Amino acid sequence: MRKVDPEKFEAKKQQILAAAITCFTRKGFHGTSTAEICAEAGMSPGNLFHYYPTKHAIIAAIVEQDRRETAAYFAQIDNSQDLFGEILKFMDIVLELAADPAYSSLALEIAAEAMRDQQIAALVTAHDAEMRTALALILRDAAARGEIGPGLDPADGAQWISALIDGVFGRVAVDPGFKPLEQKKTLHLLLTRFLRPGATT
Amino acid sequence: MRKVDPEKFEAKKQQILAAAITCFTRKGFHGTSTAEICAEAGMSPGNLFHYYPTKHAIIAAIVEQDRRETAAYFAQIDNSQDLFGEILKFMDIVLELAADPAYSSLALEIAAEAMRDQQIAALVTAHDAEMRTALALILRDAAARGEIGPGLDPADGAQWISALIDGVFGRVAVDPGFKPLEQKKTLHLLLTRFLRPGATT
Repeated sequence: MRKVDPEKFEAKKQQILAAAITCFTRKGFHGTSTAEICAEAGMSPGNLFHYYPTKHAIIAAIVEQDRRETAAYFAQIDNSQDLFGEILKFMDIVLELAADPAYSSLALEIAAEAMRDQQIAALVTAHDAEMRTALALILRDAAARGEIGPGLDPADGAQWISALIDGVFGRVAVDPGFKPLEQKKTLHLLLTRFLRPGATT
Repeated sequence: MRKVDPEKFEAKKQQILAAAITCFTRKGFHGTSTAEICAEAGMSPGNLFHYYPTKHAIIAAIVEQDRRETAAYFAQIDNSQDLFGEILKFMDIVLELAADPAYSSLALEIAAEAMRDQQIAALVTAHDAEMRTALALILRDAAARGEIGPGLDPADGAQWISALIDGVFGRVAVDPGFKPLEQKKTLHLLLTRFLRPGATT
């Protein structure tokens, strides 16, 4: 058996995910064959199988990668001196991702797949729960420091910030006139009024 | 040719839609055959075809019915003396619909279908635009009467209320612990702070 270089193995996996995302964005999960992913990644089906046994495994890996990136993002803002500002910054990133047609169509594909596939649904739900927990901790700490106003349960606040995130992608899906980046000002107004009632807006 | 009684014709169509919704809720659009819809409605395929030539036409009719009901709802609150209260009431209905597993799974099926079918997407987009226009008019009138605070463009406000509506269904899809009816208080808090900044919350 050949020795596997872990770094090369990981790099190859990233290359496959990038190729798969390109294909999925173009034609959706169900419209994309593993053969097309192989062609895009420039590798043989046998070789692909070595890294991801099924298309399903590739989709799961995409969700897992998004989860890891979100977790890393929240980990690095843990010591921030301006937690309310961090929430605004995070939501700006959400608007930027939603404004990226590749990302937003992939997000919608994943949501649709979660309706059909219980394993993908479980991954999406776990990812979402992790994000909500991170948001709730930020809201709790921000309230303790007086950075945001009182009267809001952190878990409930995190639910509604998550609903706004879902909503941004919903708007992109349903309203061709919705331009996420042009909505930054109104989203900041909404979050400021919701989280810092009494602040001048 | 037999004469068609318009009332009977309409009643039959409603009966088919109800049967179709039962089937779609149970097994999704793609998992449901027209034969199953016929069985549920207690009619023959030839008879069904007389009312709806395809399953696609049934899905389109469901979206159209939802559009008509929403339009009728907004028409009847046009003369209300408490427009902010009407927004809260409308959002309570959204929470109730989201809490109904049949309605929320149907809403998600329609969203997924709109990704695959341009004609359904066009219907959903038109329905959504109509709802946003109605919401924007309410926000404009409410602001003119001083029922809600200044500083919010009515069209932008309507966008974000629509995002919250999408978000409620997003939460139901992704978080098994999200209980829409238990979130009424926090949603009212959010809407009050967003639309009536300065009001005591």
